[in-house]
Amino acid sequence: MAFILRKTLVLNNIRQYHRHLALTDTSAFKVKNKEALLKVLPEVIDTVCKGPTLSTQPKVANWVKDMLEYILLGASLRRANDVTAAYVMFESPENITEEKIHSSHILGWCTEMTYAFGCIVDDIMDSASLRRNKLCWYRRPNVGVNAVNDTILLHQAILEILEIKFGHTPEYTDLVKIVNNAIYVFGIGQQLENFTVYTKKRNNLDCFTFENFKNIAIRKAAYATTKYPLLLGLTLMKDRQKKAKKEWIDICLDIGPLYQIHANYVTNLLINLHFCYQNDYSDVYEKESESGKTGNDIQEGKLTWLALTALPRCNEQQLATFKEFYGSPDPEHVKQIKQIYDDLKLPKLYEESESKMYNELLGRIRALPTEPERKFFLNLLGEWYKAGY
Amino acid sequence: MAFILRKTLVLNNIRQYHRHLALTDTSAFKVKNKEALLKVLPEVIDTVCKGPTLSTQPKVANWVKDMLEYILLGASLRRANDVTAAYVMFESPENITEEKIHSSHILGWCTEMTYAFGCIVDDIMDSASLRRNKLCWYRRPNVGVNAVNDTILLHQAILEILEIKFGHTPEYTDLVKIVNNAIYVFGIGQQLENFTVYTKKRNNLDCFTFENFKNIAIRKAAYATTKYPLLLGLTLMKDRQKKAKKEWIDICLDIGPLYQIHANYVTNLLINLHFCYQNDYSDVYEKESESGKTGNDIQEGKLTWLALTALPRCNEQQLATFKEFYGSPDPEHVKQIKQIYDDLKLPKLYEESESKMYNELLGRIRALPTEPERKFFLNLLGEWYKAGY
Repeated sequence: MAFILRKTLVLNNIRQYHRHLALTDTSAFKVKNKEALLKVLPEVIDTVCKGPTLSTQPKVANWVKDMLEYILLGASLRRANDVTAAYVMFESPENITEEKIHSSHILGWCTEMTYAFGCIVDDIMDSASLRRNKLCWYRRPNVGVNAVNDTILLHQAILEILEIKFGHTPEYTDLVKIVNNAIYVFGIGQQLENFTVYTKKRNNLDCFTFENFKNIAIRKAAYATTKYPLLLGLTLMKDRQKKAKKEWIDICLDIGPLYQIHANYVTNLLINLHFCYQNDYSDVYEKESESGKTGNDIQEGKLTWLALTALPRCNEQQLATFKEFYGSPDPEHVKQIKQIYDDLKLPKLYEESESKMYNELLGRIRALPTEPERKFFLNLLGEWYKAGY
Repeated sequence: MAFILRKTLVLNNIRQYHRHLALTDTSAFKVKNKEALLKVLPEVIDTVCKGPTLSTQPKVANWVKDMLEYILLGASLRRANDVTAAYVMFESPENITEEKIHSSHILGWCTEMTYAFGCIVDDIMDSASLRRNKLCWYRRPNVGVNAVNDTILLHQAILEILEIKFGHTPEYTDLVKIVNNAIYVFGIGQQLENFTVYTKKRNNLDCFTFENFKNIAIRKAAYATTKYPLLLGLTLMKDRQKKAKKEWIDICLDIGPLYQIHANYVTNLLINLHFCYQNDYSDVYEKESESGKTGNDIQEGKLTWLALTALPRCNEQQLATFKEFYGSPDPEHVKQIKQIYDDLKLPKLYEESESKMYNELLGRIRALPTEPERKFFLNLLGEWYKAGY
């Protein structure tokens, strides 16, 4: 009896601790949770590399281990953190268990792996150089085009973790569907982006619409970054009928364009040294390095918020220059496009537009009916507002 | 009563027809089944392209439709055929239904899509030009590096077909696991192959062992080509406890190296015009075109049966040449490697070795206890012995 009582007390403490911390001190919760996540990483890697498939292939297992460590270490773990946050904030306090919190950490790493999967694909397709201030995976010696195969191994590694860790649970089928759906949505986003790439020959600036921009941002950025961790966290709740409310999903997806606008800005505009109010090289350089990603959007003719906003403001001369030079790898041409952005005062427009979107989202989040909802989405918004990769 | 009797008679006829044809006249069965498969293809494509995910994205849906038609039409459909063959030959006659035969056709297309997935990845990694006598998918205008993303869309298309067509059936979870496992095994095979690639700098001819060759052939060729269609076909049986016998799987996997040896030979050796007994250009050209695939194995330093067989037979001079020139893209170097193959009479060794493997497999298949088993595996062996891609 005393034992049961003690156990109940301990359990109550655990529940209260996690939930209380998440609700009252988001920063402390994140620090604690990140520590816990990092402790779980070796278990996650071993699940795959010492698992039934790879344990008979030690060389392949080592290769996968090296890849996982390279692409996962150094991540902000915001996505992983949000899986646990969703679970402890939306589950009824009496149902929270240490085991499920551990499960949320495993799923947290699955979100990070899924995001890394997208990064590898994106970097190959964009001929990128840096990601999180490190060489992109495919740029590493001995990797190169093999990275295409690594995306297969990475996707299957996620599925194997789900099977080994959740194969016996009622949420297994849902988890597999959510993971595969996140990858499907990402692939569709990439394809939509491909369709909108501007080239002088295609003469297709009519693709540069806000609707297209939003469609791509939702699929390439918002889904894996906001909706996906939330859905995975909710899957762990005892009452499996409880679903995400429509407004939750809408907020998640609307954070996407906000995040994308900032990413476009940081990776493309801050490196323009001609800004009247921004010419301290080291400062600019630091900000670029903050984003951890090289920006080739202009060179690759990408539909960005910057291009989208500049176009209707161009005079005839600027429009002609844009049509001529956008999508060209020549540094002189890139410079001319940046000059247009500069002349049109895009930094100011960017600040205004971002601020407006942020405030609109803030209003919607503050109008949510319960404290856990408001806390969760305020934190989510804070995480992705002006955020690096 | 009369209706029930008539229905029973019709059903009995269907059962007898498919099974009888498969057992007595394999060629006629294949012709009939290929016709049926081709009739089902539009349904398969529509399941994805007009399905819940892509129907809201008509441009992406069209892209996927074009890709599926390009990569699937012109396939031999041997893999798809073997799904139906496995079902009608191993299911108890009284359980065979028209509905399940239709399901076997859907799964047949899933095997073809999975194989095509592997081809796209393989061709990108090998910088190949032709596949089935057509430009490789990634070589098409407007595709290029986007093909990396297309592998995502293709994999998800297979999973979506499974969900829509089988999501409500007890075999669904098994089917998803079998498909993902086939892709995992392929990815491991690719990685094993990467490890064995010879370069002068790595000086790693010690990787060229028959064990490595077999490990790769099983994973890259045998699994998707023989074991995978068999497993999918068996999943449709009413008694889901019935599993493939160990000897069935062993035979499937041993057909892999036999198939790979021939593929190595056709894509690399037949184009050597210096063969003493093989110098009719048009004949040689036809044979190369039969394989439908360009051969860059020598240029890329691949572990092939040819290299493996040549090495222990090389004299000092030949070994030095091999070490110097194997893995070089220079046509003069390639010519010298082929000269070694020629001097060592590899065509003769190839014929002997292939013949020995074939006869050994034939013996094992003839020793199988039941007629359906013998018929199924004899057909499988016939399909992949001296077969093109």
